[in-house]
Amino acid sequence: MSARKYTIGIDFGTESGRAVLVDVATGEEIATSVYPYANGVIDERLPESDVVLDPGWALQDPQDYLNTFQQTIPAVLKKSGIDAREVIGIGVDFTACTMMPTKADGTPLCFLLDWRANPHAWVKLWKHHAAQPEADRINAVASERGETWLNRYGGKISSEWFFSKTLQILNEAPDVYNAADRLIEAADWVVWQLTGIEKRNSCTAGYKAMWSKREGYPQDAYFALLDERLENVIDKKMLRDIYPIGEKAGEITPAAAELTGLLPGTAVAIANVDAHVSVPAVTVTDPGRLVMIMGTSICHMILGQEERNVEGMCGVVEDGIMPGLFGFEAGQSGVGDIFAWFVDHAVPREYFDEAASRGIDVHKLLEELASKQKPGEHGLLALDWWNGNRSILVDVDLSGMFIGATMSTKAEDIYRALIESTAYGTRVIIEAFERHEVTVDEIVACGGLPDKNPMLMQIYADVTGREIMLSASNQAPALGSAMFGAVAAGADVGGYETIFEAVKKMAHLKEYSYRPDPENQAIYERLYAEYVRLHDYFGRGDNDVMKTLKGIRDEVRAGRAS
Amino acid sequence: MSARKYTIGIDFGTESGRAVLVDVATGEEIATSVYPYANGVIDERLPESDVVLDPGWALQDPQDYLNTFQQTIPAVLKKSGIDAREVIGIGVDFTACTMMPTKADGTPLCFLLDWRANPHAWVKLWKHHAAQPEADRINAVASERGETWLNRYGGKISSEWFFSKTLQILNEAPDVYNAADRLIEAADWVVWQLTGIEKRNSCTAGYKAMWSKREGYPQDAYFALLDERLENVIDKKMLRDIYPIGEKAGEITPAAAELTGLLPGTAVAIANVDAHVSVPAVTVTDPGRLVMIMGTSICHMILGQEERNVEGMCGVVEDGIMPGLFGFEAGQSGVGDIFAWFVDHAVPREYFDEAASRGIDVHKLLEELASKQKPGEHGLLALDWWNGNRSILVDVDLSGMFIGATMSTKAEDIYRALIESTAYGTRVIIEAFERHEVTVDEIVACGGLPDKNPMLMQIYADVTGREIMLSASNQAPALGSAMFGAVAAGADVGGYETIFEAVKKMAHLKEYSYRPDPENQAIYERLYAEYVRLHDYFGRGDNDVMKTLKGIRDEVRAGRAS
Repeated sequence: MSARKYTIGIDFGTESGRAVLVDVATGEEIATSVYPYANGVIDERLPESDVVLDPGWALQDPQDYLNTFQQTIPAVLKKSGIDAREVIGIGVDFTACTMMPTKADGTPLCFLLDWRANPHAWVKLWKHHAAQPEADRINAVASERGETWLNRYGGKISSEWFFSKTLQILNEAPDVYNAADRLIEAADWVVWQLTGIEKRNSCTAGYKAMWSKREGYPQDAYFALLDERLENVIDKKMLRDIYPIGEKAGEITPAAAELTGLLPGTAVAIANVDAHVSVPAVTVTDPGRLVMIMGTSICHMILGQEERNVEGMCGVVEDGIMPGLFGFEAGQSGVGDIFAWFVDHAVPREYFDEAASRGIDVHKLLEELASKQKPGEHGLLALDWWNGNRSILVDVDLSGMFIGATMSTKAEDIYRALIESTAYGTRVIIEAFERHEVTVDEIVACGGLPDKNPMLMQIYADVTGREIMLSASNQAPALGSAMFGAVAAGADVGGYETIFEAVKKMAHLKEYSYRPDPENQAIYERLYAEYVRLHDYFGRGDNDVMKTLKGIRDEVRAGRAS
Repeated sequence: MSARKYTIGIDFGTESGRAVLVDVATGEEIATSVYPYANGVIDERLPESDVVLDPGWALQDPQDYLNTFQQTIPAVLKKSGIDAREVIGIGVDFTACTMMPTKADGTPLCFLLDWRANPHAWVKLWKHHAAQPEADRINAVASERGETWLNRYGGKISSEWFFSKTLQILNEAPDVYNAADRLIEAADWVVWQLTGIEKRNSCTAGYKAMWSKREGYPQDAYFALLDERLENVIDKKMLRDIYPIGEKAGEITPAAAELTGLLPGTAVAIANVDAHVSVPAVTVTDPGRLVMIMGTSICHMILGQEERNVEGMCGVVEDGIMPGLFGFEAGQSGVGDIFAWFVDHAVPREYFDEAASRGIDVHKLLEELASKQKPGEHGLLALDWWNGNRSILVDVDLSGMFIGATMSTKAEDIYRALIESTAYGTRVIIEAFERHEVTVDEIVACGGLPDKNPMLMQIYADVTGREIMLSASNQAPALGSAMFGAVAAGADVGGYETIFEAVKKMAHLKEYSYRPDPENQAIYERLYAEYVRLHDYFGRGDNDVMKTLKGIRDEVRAGRAS
């Protein structure tokens, strides 16, 4: 076929959905459209009914996902002037675990008047944090039974994951649980809306719902031990058939064509997760290169030929990132948001005044000041646990600390120390990978941080001792989804046979990279040794003061302290 | 004698000198006058010659001390309308160790044209911190020789003290050392200017120059080991006769009468130190009550019947505070200045805006916000070592840390945690006293902090478990000096026979006090245990990360890091 062909990637984020129309031959991003969710993150009151939500809750409205299709796809077609006939495929990626109860036909419970005022009928967003008791129970029962799948998740299931949220529904709203014919990831639900067929993807199943290609889901007997009503949750409300990343899910139905302006029959890829779909979008298709998606937190992704149980991983999933390979995921729960916390809560007014007078933002000013320093010059060291530690300690009850303060410590010193602490956190993860023979030769970075803060990137290169390449696209997830759309369409219609082929043509890196500076590396080597010592002392039980403090805090807040 | 009698206390501070005219019968403070030193703290360039000073240097100009006499004494006489004939005595207190080289007649070297451009010819202020190598040598040689006097100072001499500064002069400016006929505390020098006689006081000799009533100064052989040129420093440039606190130094000379407006023959007390002279001014004359002088740092003073070698004391000196008793001094090197650091470097602009809109200062706003919290509620813990640790660890290379930070940590949380950390620091000192049988039954506070921050005072009461009484005077040092002036004058002319008599009449406490709240105490008990664990871990060598960080910092700054 000689005419140019296009695919569309749809990236469902936390606050908005984004469509990017991509040239299949080159990966060129032709047009972008963003739809800010009308109901955004619902964390205070339910829309309409005004029901008040408890702290830790975070919901979404599935109507916002449909609106994303309806608004953004016609918009990118219109902006680009490209005819829907030239669009051969579509792929989607989503935050995860973002899950919802629906009727058998896919209608979300929260669309039904009977259920609309019940918070449990809505979508539980990835950062819904109210299911910790359920996660604790899932972990305790799994440990007791010696469930081997637990090792694939660094020994601990998160409160954010699928069955924590499911069990919370069952515990707090059994009627919602009963009324739900299906419990499904939003990623799979939006694909279902496009194709008319419920098909579930290997990425969310593997990383969020304890499924594996070789062992499937945990046994019914395990679920029964959690709660007898949960025994048949898989067969009754989910599906055992899981489709690997890179497959075609189906085709645009006439109804979906109406909604989106695409032609009926357009190929739709199996759904994916925003972080994981970024891996091929930054050219990574084989072991050895660590992908860091750097924003408020960091997701670390790396591919391997074999399953390894690496300490404190978020998960290892066969076909979870690229078909035929094991995908390892680790993470740091606070990175960019620690810097934001710092700017919001601990930067003196003069910095704001100076930044304003120079028309730059405070982060930029702090970077400028901090980048004049050599490593070690501020004399500070921090533990980057403001949000707890995701990898490798898997412990939400840890907290942030910094040490080395003197009367001459300045805001830019602390800012730099916080950045360095997150770089040390990344190095701890890299070393855990390598201890378990998952090699990390170089790093590819994408996400919001790399373009904003060159000093940060140099520090990461110096601390990790690795070259860091950069994604050419600043919307890697949508690009990745468009690439999977091209694979779903197939080579016959101008797409690709495999994601590996698509990567060769559609994914690109920037021409420059960050290389470690040997002099800086030598100093960071010594500082990192100090970091590791504090990491282990406070993180591995030698001194549980962080937990003690949180325990006392919670007691006092609950008025129970004595 | 029936007419009312008065004395004047002169308090020589860091930035200014202050005279207070006091009614001898009641302690009533009739008039005050403050002279801000024209040359202030000289820490960047020498006046006139513009010689640049190294970091850590802090000098003063003795002319400012003479100006203080000349300006403030006539001013209080004039303000009060009291005739000089009714002033029966004068006492002075000074910062210490604040020392200077002079000619045999008392002329400061820096008054002489030949020496004026040499920084070592000027007064070295207490906070001159450039003599650390000399302090290290003094400590090392004393340890080697097993000098028993070292135990009286918590096992370590400070870089701020007399012989550290003396040795620095000798090392860096041997010509100044040779030209100096006398090396003398500014406290004694100002008394000399009033009386025409060089007489040295037991307080600075004991606390700053390793002298003791029973053993005198260290042996000449010890000084010779430090540097052979130092062998006869005591006999050549100092005096072995030391006068106890509470004695009369002499009388106002005609020249001093000219300068001050006082009558020739007016009694002048032996000089004292600002912190130590506050003890009788807040009514404390016997063991059991700890005096805290609370400002940028805290000085802790307590009296005992016997000498005890308490861990990490600044010193124990017989006659050092009150005649006939042993005076123990301990200290925290950073308290109010840590809070000031925090407000200058880590408080977001909204707090300044809100404080400004309400016409209060930011400390007040933070106190208001922090005082809404219960103990433990913020989940934070800090080590109060921004300025190092004076007692009980005696280690300037320690640094500040805080732990427990989360994304919801607010400025007022950290502010409160910093205040609490200084209260824990005080409790560590109290427990060291009590371990060595120096009982602390209650506390009397004076200085700038107590009136400003009631929350802080309540926290100190809760953390220490002691009732805290408050000085009625907010210029306790000057009052104390005036009291010693009344003792120097003696009962015959309307003064007092002893300082104990003077205290009964002239010193007063406020009517209210801070008492521990049992509920708060219970929580602080648990938090204090965590503080002690971190205190010992970072402060006693288990983890020397604070020193390692400073070491790396210094290397990097010196360009020597590899």
